[in-house]
Amino acid sequence: MNSFGHKFKISLFGESHGNMVGVVIDGTPAGIPLKEEDLLPDLQRRRSGAKGTTPRKEDDTPVIQSGIYNGFTTGALICISFLNNNTISKDYKSLEQTPRPGHADFAVSSKYNHFNDPRGGGHTSGRLTLGIVAAGVIAKKIISPINISANILSIGGANPWEDLLDKAIQEGDSLGGLIECKGTNMPVGLGEPFFNSIESLISHIIFSVPATKGIEFGDGFRAASMKGSEHNDPIISKDGKTAKNSNGGINGGISNGNDLIFRVAIKPTSSISKPQQSINLQTGNVEEMKIAGRHDSCIALRIPVIIEAAAAIAIADLTL
Amino acid sequence: MNSFGHKFKISLFGESHGNMVGVVIDGTPAGIPLKEEDLLPDLQRRRSGAKGTTPRKEDDTPVIQSGIYNGFTTGALICISFLNNNTISKDYKSLEQTPRPGHADFAVSSKYNHFNDPRGGGHTSGRLTLGIVAAGVIAKKIISPINISANILSIGGANPWEDLLDKAIQEGDSLGGLIECKGTNMPVGLGEPFFNSIESLISHIIFSVPATKGIEFGDGFRAASMKGSEHNDPIISKDGKTAKNSNGGINGGISNGNDLIFRVAIKPTSSISKPQQSINLQTGNVEEMKIAGRHDSCIALRIPVIIEAAAAIAIADLTL
Amino acid sequence: MNSFGHKFKISLFGESHGNMVGVVIDGTPAGIPLKEEDLLPDLQRRRSGAKGTTPRKEDDTPVIQSGIYNGFTTGALICISFLNNNTISKDYKSLEQTPRPGHADFAVSSKYNHFNDPRGGGHTSGRLTLGIVAAGVIAKKIISPINISANILSIGGANPWEDLLDKAIQEGDSLGGLIECKGTNMPVGLGEPFFNSIESLISHIIFSVPATKGIEFGDGFRAASMKGSEHNDPIISKDGKTAKNSNGGINGGISNGNDLIFRVAIKPTSSISKPQQSINLQTGNVEEMKIAGRHDSCIALRIPVIIEAAAAIAIADLTL
Amino acid sequence: MNSFGHKFKISLFGESHGNMVGVVIDGTPAGIPLKEEDLLPDLQRRRSGAKGTTPRKEDDTPVIQSGIYNGFTTGALICISFLNNNTISKDYKSLEQTPRPGHADFAVSSKYNHFNDPRGGGHTSGRLTLGIVAAGVIAKKIISPINISANILSIGGANPWEDLLDKAIQEGDSLGGLIECKGTNMPVGLGEPFFNSIESLISHIIFSVPATKGIEFGDGFRAASMKGSEHNDPIISKDGKTAKNSNGGINGGISNGNDLIFRVAIKPTSSISKPQQSINLQTGNVEEMKIAGRHDSCIALRIPVIIEAAAAIAIADLTL
Repeated sequence: MNSFGHKFKISLFGESHGNMVGVVIDGTPAGIPLKEEDLLPDLQRRRSGAKGTTPRKEDDTPVIQSGIYNGFTTGALICISFLNNNTISKDYKSLEQTPRPGHADFAVSSKYNHFNDPRGGGHTSGRLTLGIVAAGVIAKKIISPINISANILSIGGANPWEDLLDKAIQEGDSLGGLIECKGTNMPVGLGEPFFNSIESLISHIIFSVPATKGIEFGDGFRAASMKGSEHNDPIISKDGKTAKNSNGGINGGISNGNDLIFRVAIKPTSSISKPQQSINLQTGNVEEMKIAGRHDSCIALRIPVIIEAAAAIAIADLTL
Repeated sequence: MNSFGHKFKISLFGESHGNMVGVVIDGTPAGIPLKEEDLLPDLQRRRSGAKGTTPRKEDDTPVIQSGIYNGFTTGALICISFLNNNTISKDYKSLEQTPRPGHADFAVSSKYNHFNDPRGGGHTSGRLTLGIVAAGVIAKKIISPINISANILSIGGANPWEDLLDKAIQEGDSLGGLIECKGTNMPVGLGEPFFNSIESLISHIIFSVPATKGIEFGDGFRAASMKGSEHNDPIISKDGKTAKNSNGGINGGISNGNDLIFRVAIKPTSSISKPQQSINLQTGNVEEMKIAGRHDSCIALRIPVIIEAAAAIAIADLTL
Repeated sequence: MNSFGHKFKISLFGESHGNMVGVVIDGTPAGIPLKEEDLLPDLQRRRSGAKGTTPRKEDDTPVIQSGIYNGFTTGALICISFLNNNTISKDYKSLEQTPRPGHADFAVSSKYNHFNDPRGGGHTSGRLTLGIVAAGVIAKKIISPINISANILSIGGANPWEDLLDKAIQEGDSLGGLIECKGTNMPVGLGEPFFNSIESLISHIIFSVPATKGIEFGDGFRAASMKGSEHNDPIISKDGKTAKNSNGGINGGISNGNDLIFRVAIKPTSSISKPQQSINLQTGNVEEMKIAGRHDSCIALRIPVIIEAAAAIAIADLTL
Repeated sequence: MNSFGHKFKISLFGESHGNMVGVVIDGTPAGIPLKEEDLLPDLQRRRSGAKGTTPRKEDDTPVIQSGIYNGFTTGALICISFLNNNTISKDYKSLEQTPRPGHADFAVSSKYNHFNDPRGGGHTSGRLTLGIVAAGVIAKKIISPINISANILSIGGANPWEDLLDKAIQEGDSLGGLIECKGTNMPVGLGEPFFNSIESLISHIIFSVPATKGIEFGDGFRAASMKGSEHNDPIISKDGKTAKNSNGGINGGISNGNDLIFRVAIKPTSSISKPQQSINLQTGNVEEMKIAGRHDSCIALRIPVIIEAAAAIAIADLTL
């Protein structure tokens, strides 16, 4: 089903070109100070506008429709909505006819027998992540003093990526990126051995973030090539601190008191203006297609705050 | 909570040195042929005995305690148990005093205020994966003709790994490994956009398999370094087949009709006989410790069948 | 948590005097024809205005914010909202000081440490049942040809209740009522033996309808006084029809092909203009209080359509 | 699905004439003293042997297979099993041919396409309630100092029921019964307004107890015939105590600090030795049938402890 969490539970609703998108949040304790302005900084970080992101601008103005009273959460469900303003009508039927490579067009329209809303990606649009970011702000308040922060490690495989990005923009191409997320002030004991390990919950929600292709904790994929004597990590203090934090703050699915560390691989934006090939489902021929419109050249640039939010939501679910 | 799945739901119970370990499975349709012998081939694949695996042998004999009648599933809960026979009593108090690096000892005993069963890893023992493998056999029947198979790609970073493994055994060290899992005959349309993408469910359960450090789908972490024009993947047939399967059979969280492809990083076994360092929680001093006993030098060798089972369980949950 | 259902899942949000109330519905299959007008007949049945119901009128205009496209459900979450228009501001602090007998004032403000929204009952207001009725319309479409209909059996214990009702209105008093709900065209085999019997799911959601005090199926409480030879019910046809339908269409928690029959006891509206007594939490004295404002003299009159909706939702959850 | 609870979750497995029946319990905090003997007093109360109950005796010896260590719960899943010893093989095919009135035979075999285990009621047998009683003992420890106790109010409609019971036994008939359950030391604030009211959770699990036909809280069905001025209940102390406890300790689905009071209607045992009529599914004729074997004349006599356990489980789920 389309919700995440047991104790701090969120559901996303809406479509890219419908009335609104939003999130319903269940499980927020009463008495947490919350007003709409609290949501703005993280929503701003997710917005487009910087180089490599789409020129299309949305208001992204959150309205808290329920669950707050006099500036505090009430303990009832919180519904936060975002009106869709900046939608441009076009002929989405062509997408059903010639599904875009790398997009969910084909899989979604098959799954829903063509009853899905295809406009702008419909319910599978990245615009739905507004709700994740908004819920993340609340989650961050809940899990405090745990602090979650995510940053870009590389774009297109490069550490300083300005030049690569300029080139991709010029060429109508796009770039993937690698994001690292760190949680500090982690307590010992979050997570369940089977089946709600911290890694299980975090990866579950992270793989709901569009464009995610991989996740690794601590030494991650490097550990597959290591010897035990290299990877193993001496415990050096009574509160569980280790020498190298090889396991990214988790043992046996349970937080061990070290920083939470994980990395997420984001694929290059599927929509590029370079010509691509895809099948015309009516003719059965593979045709060249060009995707017009306003796109992010590097969607990874906008994703760190979404990763933060997702991680905070997973941890809030384990904390409550 | 300690269960996985919505429609095909499993819970693991038991401790390594208690009476038994087992699995309770909810959601199996009535009328599937099932007898205990059906479980044996996959259980055998999980067993130790080959080079690089522990010399300790367990019977691993499954008993189906409920949910079958006259050789068919009844639709009621299936409980499968495995007696623990080959347990060796020793002084586990030392583990609480000097927790083993890389193990869950410290995190678990902190989480449960020292009420956990520490013998042989207790409830967090790899022995609990017997239940995953057993449930996986049933899941494989449910999802047929989808076929899941997992294989080792490398051990210790090497493709032919005999020599590395011999050396690690001699040195009392251990090795990590990389496993690839493939699903064939995949239908289009499995998975939910938010929050139950195929990747979400598979990663959720895979990160319950002890020693897992990372997971990636299709191009995975490589995609973070790619350009869109490299990663993008032309759709070349009316049933959704693509040229390169860059996305591992999934777009927008939903199966696209191509093979499911994912890889899992397994860390080297934490228990090595080489001397290591850890804190003595009573004295507060970091001490040298040696872990005696019978251990796998490369636990990854036993894990492919567990990965298969976990993937089959996730897909069964989406299929029903 | 504040949602109902596994496969057809609903969550209610909003407060009586907040921006809006609404419902989020997960699990509706794609391709069901749905437009806002479809919701109006049942919403109209729930409205006030008839004798014995509150003179306060709300628009109760539903807006489907998501999950439909071109007049059909898309398979994505459906969010339906209702603006709150006709709210009258008053001093709700007195309710926290002198909680109204029979109301949730005391329990709710204790539970949420006084952070709840007290205006008009806040999140516990009967106004939230708008969302149940709206979801019920969709559920009725899903479960067709099963048909659910609920009617009033008695008000204040009387079968023709005109006179009793007139008297209660004059006296500033209120009346309880008894409602019977019937489901026809029931298939055999809905429901699970433990713990999701039809009775379990129906009673679970029915007891979320404010003012419900009891529920019974088939012979119900009369069965407690019967002999087996009286209550037992011969099966008289190959499709499971019985002579008397003593069990209200259910055996062992599973539908048996006869009509579903259950009755619900609704208590008299707690808000009456007759003087009552309650504690003043500040002074500690029991004081006489009079509840002013616009109230239903018999809320039971508005509840049959809510009972229908709730039953349809429970059955949709078992049907999908 | 076949489990109950969010935070204290139980699943029942097994069949009446299979290897064993049992319960798996998830969510028990670590550190609760628990040994098998603790379960015996409540299991003894559920046993047969008294007048009006079946002469068939089972050992009902519980074995705690997991989740305890050194006499305390560990926080891991608790599996408790009961071997089936006293099973008598007979020809159950006749039950599929001529289903017993009032039993689940017809509904269950239709639901599961005849793959269900029909021996002794299979998975729908009252024997499965052993697991509810065992889980209830643990729940009672969790919710302490809340105390739950259930008693019989009447049998066959009579308050002193000796004579009625003797007569029913002589005539090969059976009797229904009415049970009242009371919870004392209730805190204020348990329960959720939508959809997990206390009544919702309690009724959900109570209707999983075989033979239950109705449930009412506080004034219950009487409230449907009352005036508000009769039913309403002055709050008379600062901690929420009311004059009459008309609402059985609950307002708006939330505990109000008064005793929890509810009553449950139990139908007469369906298996009676008096001749009854049912359809022969092969011939299509309605035939007279006599049910041989060992039966309870009044199953209600054994049910109070099951009601207690069920209520304690629901409250534990809300308490944790």
